[in-house]
Amino acid sequence: MKDGFKLLPDEELHTLIQDQLYILQKKEHFRFGIDAVLLANWAKVKSGDEVIDLGTGSGIIPLLIAYKKRPKRIVGIEIQEEMANLAERSVDLNNFAGEIEIFCQDLRNIREIFLPNTFSLVVSNPPYFSVNRGEQSLNDARAVARHEISCNFTDLAEAAAYLLGTGGRFIMIHKPERIPEIFGQLFRVRLEPKVMCLIQPRIDKSPNLVLLEAVMDGKPGLKVQPNLVIYDESGNYTPKVLQMYNGVGGR
Amino acid sequence: MKDGFKLLPDEELHTLIQDQLYILQKKEHFRFGIDAVLLANWAKVKSGDEVIDLGTGSGIIPLLIAYKKRPKRIVGIEIQEEMANLAERSVDLNNFAGEIEIFCQDLRNIREIFLPNTFSLVVSNPPYFSVNRGEQSLNDARAVARHEISCNFTDLAEAAAYLLGTGGRFIMIHKPERIPEIFGQLFRVRLEPKVMCLIQPRIDKSPNLVLLEAVMDGKPGLKVQPNLVIYDESGNYTPKVLQMYNGVGGR
Repeated sequence: MKDGFKLLPDEELHTLIQDQLYILQKKEHFRFGIDAVLLANWAKVKSGDEVIDLGTGSGIIPLLIAYKKRPKRIVGIEIQEEMANLAERSVDLNNFAGEIEIFCQDLRNIREIFLPNTFSLVVSNPPYFSVNRGEQSLNDARAVARHEISCNFTDLAEAAAYLLGTGGRFIMIHKPERIPEIFGQLFRVRLEPKVMCLIQPRIDKSPNLVLLEAVMDGKPGLKVQPNLVIYDESGNYTPKVLQMYNGVGGR
Repeated sequence: MKDGFKLLPDEELHTLIQDQLYILQKKEHFRFGIDAVLLANWAKVKSGDEVIDLGTGSGIIPLLIAYKKRPKRIVGIEIQEEMANLAERSVDLNNFAGEIEIFCQDLRNIREIFLPNTFSLVVSNPPYFSVNRGEQSLNDARAVARHEISCNFTDLAEAAAYLLGTGGRFIMIHKPERIPEIFGQLFRVRLEPKVMCLIQPRIDKSPNLVLLEAVMDGKPGLKVQPNLVIYDESGNYTPKVLQMYNGVGGR
């Protein structure tokens, strides 16, 4: 940890990877979940990759990718100023200031921030729920992280496609019930779904999350991986998930 | 079995459901596989349903649905004359002549055979492989059953949509690698994917088949069921699959 760091009164400090990575969280706000950890680990990241995380929140995904995979460049975009500041503080705290850039920006304005084809990999753990359904409560930081208030999946797919060139990859985590719509939107912007991994909480439960990798102008043909199971019969993380939390995991 | 039945020299007789159902197969031709058995069992069929099987081959799906689920009406369409004749003979052999009608027809001409909105349920175990890929060998009965020679998925989705009204269901089995394309084609004809079940040969293998139910003008929202596993560790059918083969199974 960086010397002289002071936790603010509304902050909490979480640690990951056997206390080697520090993540600041706002006490009253949306906190990162297992989703972000699964996505950061499942994403294949090469050393030459230039990576951008759309809707980075606390910066958990750039931090995990920087720590585990050391790509050439990592950028996180976050629309909410206090979350972007929090992410910035976590970057600083972990001494990643030279490796991760956080931008407080609306991804719907992505064309004003970056040139087209600037990145080789776009990742995102977006809001899962449409605004016209579900228990959307308040227009606060938590609602923005869970519901498509500040961007919907169309905005996200368009931003990803703009940022990638042919062969560029878009890796995301989402809800299985939205797969048809997601595939439709990806098709519209020439992102071809290439790998899918369904995630189920236990061996006997239905999947409730899905990891997807799409490739810009990719050849059709989806590879469906065996499902990833989170908890074993005793309610403990399965070995694969434990490895993601504690070490250098992946597909 | 019907009295006086004679097996032809190029035919074989298979039995299902503890020897209560007879299925004729051509020795040299494409034979029904587990796919048809899974589809016929997974499909929820109500007593009031009017069912059509597009590309019925040996008639295995209408025969299983007639035997197990007794809907109001079942039709099978088959483009290849000798397969249609074989299906007809199996229908007769099982005394289902009053319940199953077999039409030797090209489903691309479906508008000339049936009025729109004639059925409440369309089922299909279509050719899995595009003509421009894979090891397509001969333009024979086997190739027609495996490759999209006499119809492609666009033709199939259009025929299904034409035959169904609002709320009508299209249930199929296909290859997981084609899910993105399938969802795209279904969207085009207003068939909304509602239920998906991936099928894997063993617990540790990737899914290699997928069961899908789409609803005409259905509300978006896909339910993904737990994967169906075919074989246990000893290489025997799992209890769920065994029940489908031997008794009255289903979802």
